[in-house]
Amino acid sequence: MRFSRARFPLLFDGFTMHAYRTHTCGQLRAGDVGGQVRLSGWVHRKRDHGQLVFIDLRDHYGITQCVVDISSSLFAAVDTLRVESVITVTGKVVARSAETTNAKLDTGAIELQIAELTVQSVADTLPMPVNADADYPEDIRLRYRFLDLRREAVHRNIMLRSKVIASIRRRMIEQGFAEFQTPILTSSSPEGARDFLVPSRMHPGQFYALPQAPQQFKQLLMVAGFDRYFQIAPCFRDEDSRADRSPGEFYQLDFEMSFVTQEDVFRTIEPVLSGVFDEFSGDRAVTPPPFPRIPFDEAMLKYGSDKPDLRNPLVIEDISAIFAKSDFQVFVKIVGAGGVVRAIRAPGAAARPRSFFDKLNDWARGEGAPGLGYITLADGEAKGPIAKFLSAERVAEIRAATGAVDGDAVFFVGDKKGPAAKLAGAARNRIGQEMGLYEEGTFRFCWITDFPMYELDEKTNQIVFSHNPFSMPQGELEALETMNPLDIKAFQYDIVCNGVELSSGAIRNHKPEIMYKAFGIAGYSREDVEARFGGMLAAFKFGAPPHGGSAPGIDRIVMLLADEPNIREIIAFPLNQQAQDLLMQAPAAVPAERLKELHIRLDLPPIKKP
Amino acid sequence: MRFSRARFPLLFDGFTMHAYRTHTCGQLRAGDVGGQVRLSGWVHRKRDHGQLVFIDLRDHYGITQCVVDISSSLFAAVDTLRVESVITVTGKVVARSAETTNAKLDTGAIELQIAELTVQSVADTLPMPVNADADYPEDIRLRYRFLDLRREAVHRNIMLRSKVIASIRRRMIEQGFAEFQTPILTSSSPEGARDFLVPSRMHPGQFYALPQAPQQFKQLLMVAGFDRYFQIAPCFRDEDSRADRSPGEFYQLDFEMSFVTQEDVFRTIEPVLSGVFDEFSGDRAVTPPPFPRIPFDEAMLKYGSDKPDLRNPLVIEDISAIFAKSDFQVFVKIVGAGGVVRAIRAPGAAARPRSFFDKLNDWARGEGAPGLGYITLADGEAKGPIAKFLSAERVAEIRAATGAVDGDAVFFVGDKKGPAAKLAGAARNRIGQEMGLYEEGTFRFCWITDFPMYELDEKTNQIVFSHNPFSMPQGELEALETMNPLDIKAFQYDIVCNGVELSSGAIRNHKPEIMYKAFGIAGYSREDVEARFGGMLAAFKFGAPPHGGSAPGIDRIVMLLADEPNIREIIAFPLNQQAQDLLMQAPAAVPAERLKELHIRLDLPPIKKP
Repeated sequence: MRFSRARFPLLFDGFTMHAYRTHTCGQLRAGDVGGQVRLSGWVHRKRDHGQLVFIDLRDHYGITQCVVDISSSLFAAVDTLRVESVITVTGKVVARSAETTNAKLDTGAIELQIAELTVQSVADTLPMPVNADADYPEDIRLRYRFLDLRREAVHRNIMLRSKVIASIRRRMIEQGFAEFQTPILTSSSPEGARDFLVPSRMHPGQFYALPQAPQQFKQLLMVAGFDRYFQIAPCFRDEDSRADRSPGEFYQLDFEMSFVTQEDVFRTIEPVLSGVFDEFSGDRAVTPPPFPRIPFDEAMLKYGSDKPDLRNPLVIEDISAIFAKSDFQVFVKIVGAGGVVRAIRAPGAAARPRSFFDKLNDWARGEGAPGLGYITLADGEAKGPIAKFLSAERVAEIRAATGAVDGDAVFFVGDKKGPAAKLAGAARNRIGQEMGLYEEGTFRFCWITDFPMYELDEKTNQIVFSHNPFSMPQGELEALETMNPLDIKAFQYDIVCNGVELSSGAIRNHKPEIMYKAFGIAGYSREDVEARFGGMLAAFKFGAPPHGGSAPGIDRIVMLLADEPNIREIIAFPLNQQAQDLLMQAPAAVPAERLKELHIRLDLPPIKKP
Repeated sequence: MRFSRARFPLLFDGFTMHAYRTHTCGQLRAGDVGGQVRLSGWVHRKRDHGQLVFIDLRDHYGITQCVVDISSSLFAAVDTLRVESVITVTGKVVARSAETTNAKLDTGAIELQIAELTVQSVADTLPMPVNADADYPEDIRLRYRFLDLRREAVHRNIMLRSKVIASIRRRMIEQGFAEFQTPILTSSSPEGARDFLVPSRMHPGQFYALPQAPQQFKQLLMVAGFDRYFQIAPCFRDEDSRADRSPGEFYQLDFEMSFVTQEDVFRTIEPVLSGVFDEFSGDRAVTPPPFPRIPFDEAMLKYGSDKPDLRNPLVIEDISAIFAKSDFQVFVKIVGAGGVVRAIRAPGAAARPRSFFDKLNDWARGEGAPGLGYITLADGEAKGPIAKFLSAERVAEIRAATGAVDGDAVFFVGDKKGPAAKLAGAARNRIGQEMGLYEEGTFRFCWITDFPMYELDEKTNQIVFSHNPFSMPQGELEALETMNPLDIKAFQYDIVCNGVELSSGAIRNHKPEIMYKAFGIAGYSREDVEARFGGMLAAFKFGAPPHGGSAPGIDRIVMLLADEPNIREIIAFPLNQQAQDLLMQAPAAVPAERLKELHIRLDLPPIKKP
């Protein structure tokens, strides 16, 4: 089936036939047999059967078979039509015989006998086919995007995107949110990525920035008393592209609420996300609200990641204390030096061949680890390279800690806490994949909560913000004044689905004195804070409500639902990997007088000699 | 009444009281009396009655009166609160006595006795009041926009805008349209205004442009087969500001449809526009569909404008032939030289004092005309400065042509066709205003159709496109090849409401050979056309459907509905007249290294000596 049946009222006044169509190409049914109709669309496929020529006529709504026989004066004209030409055909709807009925097509019970033909637009020979799903190189697809978008899969994805966004909007409005547009020509964001800049014609030497996110504006809307804001917001980051990130612009479901706790934010947005996923997931199961809430520390321990893929049933356990008492000196030393040992139980893996373990070991080396230690459990005993360093008592403790039983394997990672968590998380993913343990056809959501407010920059050894500097520290001013900064948690949270971070969010810091202090810990003076965030600070000094929100990525939501790993499959007109629009020729050189008007000139890098 | 009653589910788990509120400030009614509640909001107004202090507590949803008496330990704390501080109050709902009930307030039957108080945010002394509607200078209002937006009128306008846009979206989807986002980082538009440019970091010396409108992309979506596209589209023009036009960015309801005639476009969008206006117009009447269709030539004749305000009942008549036979040599000469004489009947104006006519005459001189000739009709005769040049027969003809009767006046304008139409149109407006003839409380829509495809550039004496060069000429290729270009009409149309042009639209030219020819008449070579519109042309060569659309301005729609003449009243965060954001400090200087990264440097104008 191609798209849904048309539901819009066709414009046909009942007296004269419409110039282009009385029905869409997805509309005619057995009940229409005998009627005179007119259809317009693209020549999707043409089949010459000698005495008969069949045209599959395609529009947005579907495909209708049209036919002309050799006795018709139109036979030659139809027979020479090139695919993807746009035509209008008029004629009688006739029933197909039982053996030629096409059950796969909504219109498969009928065909149209062509009595009139108008060619609206002749197609040249195509640079890529529309009626086949073969993969084509990105540059061809994007240069001829108007053809690529006609292809069934891409067309369906773009429609899915539109429907997902409309559904999100409807659900947000049902939750009491109002949508507002925030400025696109604005000032440099404190988001940390690189801004796109726009030279000002009226203010020589000055530049607008395109927003990396409407963060400050949405907070200002709360300060202005709007209570529940959302926006399907265009955001801009001048960063190098990735498969899952559009170079240039992307969209997020930006939202913010006043007078809420973190839990309120969760309870408000969960029905929106689970509702949208339910609506478009087909047979796939969706985590019902409330989604699991997993504190950051627990996520790093159990999943080795702050974006755990919960479709993977494996969990990581800390067994540092067990190895500290073992004879395995490598891990004893690591634990002695303050490091950790983590274990992953792989159920039933003891029966796997040696090559399974060797492959994982090689993989771990590729990740920069010395290897991936393990034991296998069978007949009440442990085997494998590390087994000899573990007494029966230690093995019993490992069984108890990990839940491992005979027939299982247990993998070990020992390192400093951070790298150990990271490697264990990667190993968890890898083992889950190798063993085929991931649930299929599910969307598994969770919240990651209680992110640390600060972290140590390893290069500079300075305390820096872990994530969003505008988050409210848990414990507010007292925590900032009395606690080790690295122990302070923020009211900051991520929403994660199938290992994909959909968004970061937070309860915001709405109190100027806490803001000054929080930034002070990260090395900013009062003057720095005022210079960089003066607008926000000013606002907070005239009555700011407690508020918080988040901003799930639209592109990522659609990619998950469409099951497409590449952003280009779900955006109508993406830039390519080099941030170019090959069809519309962007970016491009501009006349010198335009630059003069903008008070800039080019400062080109020297031409590299070959 | 302040805003509507809250309708979102409040987050209160039934066991512990929510940290911030159990109800909104617009929610409590007589039925809630006796309950323990918690509210959060802004201190809107404070009244100290000696023994009692009253707080009007305001949030997005309404205002609730809160009270504390002198016996309370909180009395001093409440008494010293500054307005616009954010507080949370907890206490019992009590009924107001009959004489203190406030019928104007949804919550006017009750008040809250403050038993607990938490100050969430202290407000400094305000630079402008929130609880008064006095006008404030733009720079104060925009610098403290977060305060300005709390004021009742602005807050209501911004909510109106949000609701109007949501309603438009809903109605467009009901009409079978799907919303798509088109690129914001794109190439220079052929719209004719000045683009905003964005230097490319990855492509030295090249620039993106922000779209003046998604014109080419929406046409590409049609070529890609999407059938019915719309978008609440951000558009960008680097033009100087006007009261009714935002400097920088603005939004339009951009839409496009395939396989449609002009009439189809009208019938599809009329229910959307009339529906939205009906929904938000309050008591004001809205033209029901179908809206009048007025050909451009008729509009220029009858209303002297291609955006006639149909609330004004006056119409203009051509009476050149009558004056050609008159003794008024000024007009005889004008008509003899190919000019025209136009008449406006002003019903009942004969009784007006001489000063009325003198004032209009002075006004006409201010417009650059020699004056505004007129006659008054009474007792079967004509009087006034021009009457002596008109025989009884001519006067009878003027009566017949204009429908004027005894008691009326008739005004005359004579000039070349263009200036005469313009002055007559301005006079029609002026006379209508002076006489108070405009209908009040109505939204009068019309379509202006059949715009000329080309016009003569008076400076260069060259033929140029009148409006959109992408419109389909009526008569297509044959018209272009055989007619005088200045006689060719386009399938181009404007929608006008109360004299405000909401949008231009057209059935597009989707045939490359007609495009080459149409541009050729305006002096573009094939190579020019290919260089400037290569993307579109390429698309049209691979099967393009007949298509058309329009793009009503969102800002103008909201301004009409809000009855606000200035754009700043209906946009949350507008730039000021100098295209600056005074709150967020945009535009601003950027560090030299950022410019280097973008391969540009400043080229500042010399500093002017004082």
